[in-house]
Order: sequence, then structure tokens, then C-alpha cells
Amino acid sequence: MKQLILASTSTLHNETYLAYLLPELQHFFKDVDEIVFVPYAQPGGISYNAYTEIAKKAFEEIGLKIKGVHEFEDAKEALKTAKAIFVGGGNTFRLVNQLYVLNLMDTLRDSIDKGVPYLGTSAGSNIAGLTMQTTNDMPIVDPPSYTTLGCIPFNLNVHYIEPDKNSTHKGETRAVRIKEFHTVADIPVVGLREGSWLRVQGDEIRLEGHLSAVLFNKNEEPFTVPPNHLF
Amino acid sequence: MKQLILASTSTLHNETYLAYLLPELQHFFKDVDEIVFVPYAQPGGISYNAYTEIAKKAFEEIGLKIKGVHEFEDAKEALKTAKAIFVGGGNTFRLVNQLYVLNLMDTLRDSIDKGVPYLGTSAGSNIAGLTMQTTNDMPIVDPPSYTTLGCIPFNLNVHYIEPDKNSTHKGETRAVRIKEFHTVADIPVVGLREGSWLRVQGDEIRLEGHLSAVLFNKNEEPFTVPPNHLF
Repeated sequence: MKQLILASTSTLHNETYLAYLLPELQHFFKDVDEIVFVPYAQPGGISYNAYTEIAKKAFEEIGLKIKGVHEFEDAKEALKTAKAIFVGGGNTFRLVNQLYVLNLMDTLRDSIDKGVPYLGTSAGSNIAGLTMQTTNDMPIVDPPSYTTLGCIPFNLNVHYIEPDKNSTHKGETRAVRIKEFHTVADIPVVGLREGSWLRVQGDEIRLEGHLSAVLFNKNEEPFTVPPNHLF
Repeated sequence: MKQLILASTSTLHNETYLAYLLPELQHFFKDVDEIVFVPYAQPGGISYNAYTEIAKKAFEEIGLKIKGVHEFEDAKEALKTAKAIFVGGGNTFRLVNQLYVLNLMDTLRDSIDKGVPYLGTSAGSNIAGLTMQTTNDMPIVDPPSYTTLGCIPFNLNVHYIEPDKNSTHKGETRAVRIKEFHTVADIPVVGLREGSWLRVQGDEIRLEGHLSAVLFNKNEEPFTVPPNHLF
């Protein structure tokens, strides 16, 4: 049975990396002692090693070992035999590109389908959707395809936020951007606020955390769903 | 001699479409009576006709006619023989895709190189840069290439804004996103605030409007340049 946690963000304001999620993760990963970490999204362009160190430090607190997928001789084999997988945030274009270039997208999906627990944060959550077309990131590389894992039957918009009502900024809001997406696709989009995560168990998808989320369906007004909503 | 106005935004807070730019545009387009409008970026997904109507209405105020490139039988011929060109904002991926699909990117560049006055706003300004990799838009379509017109020797980040210092939001700032871009490319990026535009005359590129801009060079701290700065 599929087991995923898809978090909007790794880090909350004034908190350390993953701090708000650690109690949940301790439970989620209770049957494993090592997690294979995928650092390909390289937030801010940091190295795979530097990024893996950040993840290691966070998981040490709950007694779990982290090994970067790049530290294995064979990345595909590492994802195939992983007991648990964590794909960190950063640039979604870079992450998706690297998964395709290394021919790992199908391997990752197969492991998730087998029931290997999967944690995604930010870009790592984006790729669990049907496509990466609702990412907020810049197209710094051009991946072979925008199609992603499709572990959930919709797309995510992570770090979801409504515009500040007092703002004078005229750049497009998330809602306008998602409306543009809906002129070319009929895929629902869930705007997931920082501090929220989706808990996937087989076909059940639950909104967790204390915050609401926003569901955007094509040709409908966006609507708010409360915590514990089942998608 | 190349003649371009590349504006960060079409519209300022509490103003009508293009209002802040009209005095400048009246001067810029003084030798033409009709402008070919390219509506391919379709902001919010509106139709080519609806978008063209918005542009028509704004230019009526300064006595200029607008005709949508889609209203011509042959779009390539329309851009080749245009006396002036305006590419409006919206989704940069859609705009670039459509220009490639219709084989218009080279035609557009040729007309600009010949000296046809070109106005870009937002996505229409993005495409004057070397690549579209520093757009803020969502990848709703997958263009054949991210390479754009290269009328200026750098990239733009339009609707540029610094994060609110009181914000608790953890999504990447523009500066972080541009830093990620600089891990894969050595192209300078100019963060152009709403209300600013670049005035290109041949090889001279001047920052116009009352606001500063921010210049991001690879491996350097971003620095602020004042109005009238020559790039």
C-alpha cells in the first residue's frame, strides 16, 4: 500500500529544518532505520553533499540514518532497494530533469507503489502530482518531460499563499497562474499552505496539519477545504 | 537601429492598462499609425480577441491603431512588414511556445534588428532577454526551447520585488531563484521593478522610470542600480 507524506515546505518560519514534522516522521518511519535521500533539487544551488548533511542532522534527532542517493554506486539500485525515500525541496525543474536523465522516474514510482514510505517536501512533493506544471520555480533547466510520478490524482501548488490584501504588486497571483494552467489542462490543483501536508495511504489522501488548503478545479471557483479533508 | 521599450508590467496599482507608460509610448511610436499586437501570452487565459481589445482601448487614447497578429491571414508576414510591434504580458511559456510553433521567433528578431519599434510588457519583455529561464510564470506548456530573442545581453526578472521583511513565508525569494539559475548559467539578470522599463536604442540600454533595479551577476552579491543607469 502506498505510503506518502507530501509536505508543502521543509521548514517553518523561525524553526529548524523539518522540526514541525519530526513527531509525524518518527511515527511514519518507525519500521525503518535508513532513508535514502534524493538531493537533486539543490535548493539555492547547494551541493548534494551539503544538502544531505542538512537532512542527516535533522533525522539524527529521531535516531534515523540518512544516505544520499548520490553516495551509492548505483542510484537506480539504491532507489529500488531503499527501505524509505525522502526527496527534498529546491528547484523542481532541476529535480525532474535529473530524475529523467538518470532514468529514475519509473524506479521511484515502482518503489512507492510497492509501499516504500516516501517523504517529499516542496519540490519533492510537487513530483508526486501528475505533472510539475504548477510549480513556482524558475525553469533553470529544461527537463525532457513535465510528467511526474502521479502518486496522487491531481497536482500540487506548494508554499501556497494568498496575496496580501494590502499589496500593490501586480505580478500574477497563484490563483491567476493556476487559472492559466486550467486553460491547457483539466487536472485539479491543491494549494498546500506551509505547515500542511498530505498523508497518502493507498487511495486515501488526507490533509494534515492545522491549516486549510485550497482546491482549484477547472472552470470552478476555488474552494477551501478544512484540515482532515479527504481528497 | 534597435528601438525597444521593455516594461516590467503593463499596469500599475490603481491605474488602467498602460496608463503610466502612455506619454512615453506616444513619443516612442510617433512615426507609426498602426501597431501589430501579439496576444499569445494570454494573461489569465483570456482569448486573443479579448486581449487585443484591451490593448486597442489603451492605444486609442494616444490615437494609435492596434491590430492583433492573429487577425492577419499570415502572422509571419504581419511581423515582417509591421511598422511597430507590441508583445503583451501573460504566461511566458505559452508565449514562447506559440512563437516557436508558428516559427515566428526569428521573424520577430529580424524585424527588431531592422529597427521596427518594439514594446514588451512583462512576458513580452522577458522574451527580449537571452533566455526565458528567469520568468516567474508556471510551465503550463513546454516550449521547444527556452532561448528567446536576445535583443539585450542579459535576462530579465520582471515584476521584481524584494520579500516583505515581516513575512513568515518560506517559499524561495527572487534572489534565491536567480542564484539557482546562476548555478547553471553565467547570464546576468536584471530585476526590473513594476513602474520601470528599459529603453534600448541600438547598443544603449537605459533604465527608465523613477525606481532602481537590481543587477544579479553570477558569484557576486546583487547590486542596486539607479534610474538612468546604462547597462
